[in-house]
Amino acid sequence: MSQTSRIDVQSLTAFVELLFKAAGADAEVARVVTRVLLEGELLGHRTHGLNLVSRYIGGIQAGQVKARAGLLEQLAHNGISSLFDGHYLLGPYCVSRALDCAAQGASAQGIGIAVVRRAAHIGCLAAYLQPFTERGLVAMLYSSDPSVALVCAHGGIEPVYTPNPIAAGIPTRGEPILLDVSMSTVTLGLVGQCRDSGQRLAHPVLMSNDGQLSDNPDDFFTTPSGSILPLGGQAFGHKGFALALLVEALTSGLAGHGRKDAPDQWGASATAVVIDPRFFGGLDAFTDETSFLGQLLLASRPRDPERPVRLPGQTGLNLRKQALSEGLSLSPQLIDDLNQLAGQLQCPTLSH
Amino acid sequence: MSQTSRIDVQSLTAFVELLFKAAGADAEVARVVTRVLLEGELLGHRTHGLNLVSRYIGGIQAGQVKARAGLLEQLAHNGISSLFDGHYLLGPYCVSRALDCAAQGASAQGIGIAVVRRAAHIGCLAAYLQPFTERGLVAMLYSSDPSVALVCAHGGIEPVYTPNPIAAGIPTRGEPILLDVSMSTVTLGLVGQCRDSGQRLAHPVLMSNDGQLSDNPDDFFTTPSGSILPLGGQAFGHKGFALALLVEALTSGLAGHGRKDAPDQWGASATAVVIDPRFFGGLDAFTDETSFLGQLLLASRPRDPERPVRLPGQTGLNLRKQALSEGLSLSPQLIDDLNQLAGQLQCPTLSH
Repeated sequence: MSQTSRIDVQSLTAFVELLFKAAGADAEVARVVTRVLLEGELLGHRTHGLNLVSRYIGGIQAGQVKARAGLLEQLAHNGISSLFDGHYLLGPYCVSRALDCAAQGASAQGIGIAVVRRAAHIGCLAAYLQPFTERGLVAMLYSSDPSVALVCAHGGIEPVYTPNPIAAGIPTRGEPILLDVSMSTVTLGLVGQCRDSGQRLAHPVLMSNDGQLSDNPDDFFTTPSGSILPLGGQAFGHKGFALALLVEALTSGLAGHGRKDAPDQWGASATAVVIDPRFFGGLDAFTDETSFLGQLLLASRPRDPERPVRLPGQTGLNLRKQALSEGLSLSPQLIDDLNQLAGQLQCPTLSH
Repeated sequence: MSQTSRIDVQSLTAFVELLFKAAGADAEVARVVTRVLLEGELLGHRTHGLNLVSRYIGGIQAGQVKARAGLLEQLAHNGISSLFDGHYLLGPYCVSRALDCAAQGASAQGIGIAVVRRAAHIGCLAAYLQPFTERGLVAMLYSSDPSVALVCAHGGIEPVYTPNPIAAGIPTRGEPILLDVSMSTVTLGLVGQCRDSGQRLAHPVLMSNDGQLSDNPDDFFTTPSGSILPLGGQAFGHKGFALALLVEALTSGLAGHGRKDAPDQWGASATAVVIDPRFFGGLDAFTDETSFLGQLLLASRPRDPERPVRLPGQTGLNLRKQALSEGLSLSPQLIDDLNQLAGQLQCPTLSH
């Protein structure tokens, strides 16, 4: 924790925004995408934080990922329900706009929903939620990618669908509850990390292409590939499988663009649902209840005295608080990568 | 499969409706509750089917469960979002009315939501969904019970909350996908069945009151009681835990009535969300996608050749089809119980 490795968040924001603008993004797109990636980093999602900057800008430079706000096309809208086509515009911009749109519906009539098809990579779902919980709204996100197949059916061998996360931000009297969980046992990111570091997975949650359970990441990266078990594993995988199908329906199904269209480019289907408790039992009753429940859970006797019970998002929110006051600690590798990108885009580099 | 054990569904419906009416239920309440319990039975949910008739009528007779439609109080309503207080009215009536209300919102503007607090027992969530999928709607149900604590926090010992199921009906070109899964590893019903039959659970998904993992149902039924692990178990229980908190927020949180109120009577908080795909990519595109995905999954190579992949709800829908054409097969015990109740209520008994 040396002084030199911590960079204040304001400088980082300005630096990253400038990179996106230099790469051709509209100012508004650069601002929104930077905020989402930085929030991912602040919450400790290192694989879905600032390390995505060079991937996203690489995508823009290769022409696969778009950066002009005007590309986001609103195909249907009635104040409560919306459908957008992202045309492969930077995903954090698409999803943020969808959430804003759903939040307007929620503020008007209690609930709003917005579906986006063909968003470029959307990063960390938990990173989108706090602006809404701060306004006393419950914000939910679902996503899938119809061009990718990683997870098997319960009882099946081949990969058919994606990890299909469900994320939600829930207001309380204090810090929000922020959940972001995939409907698979593990994500591709973790399988890749294990392979790269030569480690086994902690549990046998992979299926080899000949139907053997495995904890060896090499059994996933084969031709044809292996698959990841649904949440619940061998014993209760029917539950994760069922929930994943619900996520497919709410995202690619409502989007009218999915696996049936055999898209050949990575592109997310994402659905935002926002609810305003004021239209039901009221915001005070809502946050009283979520705070009461949170306290009950935190007061649970822990099974391991060294590991007290934590609420979803709590660890990330603590990291965020620390980073906001002390600056963000980035790895030298990440700083070098970002500065290399800055040089290439003729932007000032990050001083540290 | 003797002739005598199969009873046609029409006669059963008339018989059960009459029982509820004789017990004091309004005709409309009797009709709706009978339909939901019978649907549960048809889908093969024996523990959440007609065996609930005597429990429900016993509750009415004891004064704990109400049976007059007028008790269902609409506390808030704006065409899209509603809140009801059930005042412990028969749960299937409350939840059906909430779904109807949410479906009206969906048909008007794409999505509708209705929350119910203090519904009496609501039965099997999957049993409510088909009338909506048949109209091309996606219907979702969430429920919790703030008077009951069965499931532990991830990493905690004491039971704090309920299994908190998520159910959904998803239209396809053929049979709907019907999912109904708890956010716990197992339900109390299963733990009780294992205890009654002297069996162990198939997996160590219980936590004894001193923090030991166990597959022995006796470790749950202690004083203080044990608990059930969240979906995901020891390895991935943070996911089931997080989803269960979302369900608590969407049900008891929005209802403004939950654990903070320390209710001393069994009573569900339930939330219905209905979505109309016509307001997004269209119903054809939706059912094309869900059908395409369903076919992909059904074509999966099964891990066990004897057990082909099945879609959520498929087994129940097959049982339902058979029962509708051949009659329902009820256990002699259930028929005796129902006929005893009929005698007590001075109704004609069930001939078989």
